[in-house]
Amino acid sequence: MSSETAAAGSKTRDRGDFWAVIPAGGAGTRLWPLSRISRPKFLLDLTGAGRTLLQQTADRLAPLAGERTMVITGARHWDAVAGQLPELDAIVDGTPRIVAEPSPRDSMAAIGLAAAMIERADPDAVMGSFAADHAISGRAEFERVVDAALGSARAGSLVTIGIEPNRPSDAFGYIRTGAPVPELPGVHRVEEFVEKPDVATAERYLAEGGYLWNAGMFVVRPTVLLDLLAQGHPRFAAELRAIAGDPDSLARRWERLPRIAIDHAVAEPAAEQGAVSCVPAAFAWDDIGDFDALGRLLPEAPVQVLGDRDLVHDEFARALVVPGSGRPIAVVGLEDVVVVDTDDALLVCSRTDAQRVKEIVAALRERGHDEIL
Amino acid sequence: MSSETAAAGSKTRDRGDFWAVIPAGGAGTRLWPLSRISRPKFLLDLTGAGRTLLQQTADRLAPLAGERTMVITGARHWDAVAGQLPELDAIVDGTPRIVAEPSPRDSMAAIGLAAAMIERADPDAVMGSFAADHAISGRAEFERVVDAALGSARAGSLVTIGIEPNRPSDAFGYIRTGAPVPELPGVHRVEEFVEKPDVATAERYLAEGGYLWNAGMFVVRPTVLLDLLAQGHPRFAAELRAIAGDPDSLARRWERLPRIAIDHAVAEPAAEQGAVSCVPAAFAWDDIGDFDALGRLLPEAPVQVLGDRDLVHDEFARALVVPGSGRPIAVVGLEDVVVVDTDDALLVCSRTDAQRVKEIVAALRERGHDEIL
Repeated sequence: MSSETAAAGSKTRDRGDFWAVIPAGGAGTRLWPLSRISRPKFLLDLTGAGRTLLQQTADRLAPLAGERTMVITGARHWDAVAGQLPELDAIVDGTPRIVAEPSPRDSMAAIGLAAAMIERADPDAVMGSFAADHAISGRAEFERVVDAALGSARAGSLVTIGIEPNRPSDAFGYIRTGAPVPELPGVHRVEEFVEKPDVATAERYLAEGGYLWNAGMFVVRPTVLLDLLAQGHPRFAAELRAIAGDPDSLARRWERLPRIAIDHAVAEPAAEQGAVSCVPAAFAWDDIGDFDALGRLLPEAPVQVLGDRDLVHDEFARALVVPGSGRPIAVVGLEDVVVVDTDDALLVCSRTDAQRVKEIVAALRERGHDEIL
Repeated sequence: MSSETAAAGSKTRDRGDFWAVIPAGGAGTRLWPLSRISRPKFLLDLTGAGRTLLQQTADRLAPLAGERTMVITGARHWDAVAGQLPELDAIVDGTPRIVAEPSPRDSMAAIGLAAAMIERADPDAVMGSFAADHAISGRAEFERVVDAALGSARAGSLVTIGIEPNRPSDAFGYIRTGAPVPELPGVHRVEEFVEKPDVATAERYLAEGGYLWNAGMFVVRPTVLLDLLAQGHPRFAAELRAIAGDPDSLARRWERLPRIAIDHAVAEPAAEQGAVSCVPAAFAWDDIGDFDALGRLLPEAPVQVLGDRDLVHDEFARALVVPGSGRPIAVVGLEDVVVVDTDDALLVCSRTDAQRVKEIVAALRERGHDEIL
């Protein structure tokens, strides 16, 4: 083995500075009635794998970060998260590994709090943030991509992992990539983050190349992240660091933090300064934003079933069926219908209109049906 | 009032010889899971009127036949029928008014048994047979039509009431009518009964005129009916009359009776002899053969609900929803979907394929799911 290869090998395997952060938030409203306020998407097994999305996210990161894994979740979900991740001690060396947000305050507060706590526990750390409710397959490629991102993050960049698009989706934001970064194989400059396009624009992105789906995955030194935040929001960054220094002040300080997404607070301004890089990833990824996405994720079949196949009886139907109440379900002569049967609510929807489920949820909320939301 | 008018008036009002026979059989398989083996279509309120189809049939006939009403039903449904028709005494003057068939033996046995019992109780009677699970609206027209049929039946005809078609349905058999019968206003000869046509043929029938839907309604003297039966099936007619003379022999004799529909046993051969007449009826009629028919019957609306409207939430949907389990049902972005929610089974179906529900029921039977059939 040449010394050059040994160095490259040691570089990719030595991840003792890597901390995994898993923000576990978001209701997944468009997956109602499967997802509920009290049982959000990340607590569900949406792939039939026998592991929930949260568990799969932790499983994926365990070989990279081990016990340096931190989950940030709503106070009401703390028990469920701890129950699903019994291998994760709640506190290690005085740093909580399952952190309860007193209330939802969007992604900058959640990820920023993790950054501040990790900065204090391990000043040389590099953190990677990976949502608890996304589906990823292809573990070797995932680890290759994280290693590449770590290289760039150690060198001081805010690194985003972007997904090579395989279709012109209008459901995701995009990352426009620039030139490769010298000395860092697989890493590119980020030119800009672009909002969700219309389908025609998405088709152009796909044809032109150089555009990636923004999957919201960031790898960065905590200090770099908080310093970037401090440029536009100095008090925000200071408050986060103050909480890390005085955990008892969390409840009091938390409510004063701005509600803002990390993309707007840090990533977009930093991209304008040329301070963001990205690693294009070839693994399969989906944020499972609605039942249409869930259907894409499940094995291809005329009638896809998430749950007990024996409960589903079909004739001349194309369907995605979630039998969740134990009752038999018959589906006859429909194309791409979604049927979600639960103990206390039933959804029947077309896959084409899967996004509109959130409108039903809004209507139910307005009509005071909180007991089924 | 001239003596002529008085005579006509008395003729239409004096129905003391009229007996109503209500065969209450048939499972209504294509309305599963609303209809079940243990709860067939005629026991259900399918119009949201607060009265079941059986009750509505009895209500419609009560002004014409009063206590001369006889229901023939399966032994297992006897209690349910008696419960739904408390105004109908089980036995009047020794003649049962709710007759239990020991087992299903098709319409000739059921209607023939009623005919034999009525012949014995009231030799001058005219009977009219009206299925317990059809929907009819327009009471005045119904009574006009029955009165016209009574006139022809008293004169010795087998009279069928046929429905003026308002669309080229391929779901019903047809009656080809001939010349008007002299002296009997509203009555025509029947040329022949024709099987369910294809849509093109049904369109031709509608365009040509002179074709009626065969709604299976017969008005006839019991003696005429049994004598017509005796021409082709002498033992069958003799057995029916023997049962009427010795009711205790019902169970023993019943199992030997042929399984044959009254159409094939009597109506079609009699039509070939020119012995059948018919009265075209302009009332709205449907046999509610499937959920598409049920949708036609309910008030027009983008989302039709049979049950509690408050349980149904919809966005951009055209649907027929039967909320039967008490759970809220959300329907999003589908066209002409049928959702039938019951405590122990769920059906989601397209209205176009409503006939295929029977295939699901057959599949469930084959798979041994008798508990939900």
